[in-house]
Amino acid sequence: MSPRPFTIVFALYDGMTQLDFTGPHEFLSRTPGAVTLVASRDGGAVKSDRLEFGGTVPLATVSGCDLLCVPGGLSATAVALDRVFIAEIRRLGLGARYVTSVCTGSLILGAAGLLKGKRAACHWAWRELLPLFGAIPQADRVVRDGDIITGGGVTAGMDFALTVLTEIAGADVAQAIQLGLEYDPQPPFHAGSPQSAPPQVLARFQATAAPLIEKRRAQAEEAARLLVGDASTTETDVIL
Amino acid sequence: MSPRPFTIVFALYDGMTQLDFTGPHEFLSRTPGAVTLVASRDGGAVKSDRLEFGGTVPLATVSGCDLLCVPGGLSATAVALDRVFIAEIRRLGLGARYVTSVCTGSLILGAAGLLKGKRAACHWAWRELLPLFGAIPQADRVVRDGDIITGGGVTAGMDFALTVLTEIAGADVAQAIQLGLEYDPQPPFHAGSPQSAPPQVLARFQATAAPLIEKRRAQAEEAARLLVGDASTTETDVIL
Repeated sequence: MSPRPFTIVFALYDGMTQLDFTGPHEFLSRTPGAVTLVASRDGGAVKSDRLEFGGTVPLATVSGCDLLCVPGGLSATAVALDRVFIAEIRRLGLGARYVTSVCTGSLILGAAGLLKGKRAACHWAWRELLPLFGAIPQADRVVRDGDIITGGGVTAGMDFALTVLTEIAGADVAQAIQLGLEYDPQPPFHAGSPQSAPPQVLARFQATAAPLIEKRRAQAEEAARLLVGDASTTETDVIL
Repeated sequence: MSPRPFTIVFALYDGMTQLDFTGPHEFLSRTPGAVTLVASRDGGAVKSDRLEFGGTVPLATVSGCDLLCVPGGLSATAVALDRVFIAEIRRLGLGARYVTSVCTGSLILGAAGLLKGKRAACHWAWRELLPLFGAIPQADRVVRDGDIITGGGVTAGMDFALTVLTEIAGADVAQAIQLGLEYDPQPPFHAGSPQSAPPQVLARFQATAAPLIEKRRAQAEEAARLLVGDASTTETDVIL
């Protein structure tokens, strides 16, 4: 019997930011010899921020994977409260060789209890929510802590993917895929981080994000409470 | 009656490279006040290289648009032979303020007769096919010739999108979207162009692409013949 091929699973959900998923997927699904699955809680269609994806498989039907990748999105903190989804993420994450995320996907990994004491990346505007889950936020585009590899906001998913490819397939394969996807970025502005963006641009973003901050923090705090509750139950189970 | 909002149309097809579409879509669909439509020849589901998109509208039901964007893909030269698809691209392109493409999407614009005498970008490996359609290949990541704006291979779609956003919404909006998507690229290698890639990486890519070159050139030549045929018919119509 031939061994199972290296299996990559992307876990999608409604309201995710599609480029958090599609960027890394375009790179990682080209890994030679690997199988890439696109899954969601219930299978079928997933509606991202502004696109619809079809043909996802139910997470419960995925027996295991070598690499789990969770994208982020404005709904990430709401999804962190979905116990069915989070239980599947925890199950797959505990069995995977590599546990990964892009953008606020790290908050979902955190809610699944997979980042305790681990350094992790996140979208710059939401990074401060990571400690709620016992994670250590790190302001880098790609953060590796053991076999946990996390990317920063949205487009960081491509730099993240090259890092992952180097790990699972080697630098030559990573660079061949980079060449094929012509990833030689030349943005016309240097406004992609709060440090480099012009002050009025940063102010505009913060004004837009302000109404969301309280709501997302409350959701993340509730997810963190559920996580502690789950952990206590497990301890009780062991003791009794 | 209020004026029609600025309308952006992405024209999808089976076998396209999804990141050619999803990258620019994540940026451009955030244009304030604009409407973004995702269309395909027959509507419904579209299967890209390795993902499935749902909910596309039939191109024939799109009465017009302000900006047309055509992604590329390995099937682009085959799609260039689909007279129904190409006729829709020509109709929308002739009525649009901006005609745009990413990657080998420019070959489809060319097959629709929209690039005659125009400078255009394309994926570096397929750029030499542009002159078949009377276009002038230009080895830049984003090329603008009047209101025709074309991007290079795949990930160039994000630099392309920022250029388009600056044109249609202004530099402040473009930079705010860049900040929100954290587009501050830091690829771990500089292998994204044939000039920067290590020789063995370039050789690996070329060996993989070699079997495709003859087939794609033959398809593009046939599409160019059909284009000349269409043009002759039009001229005859005018004379008679």
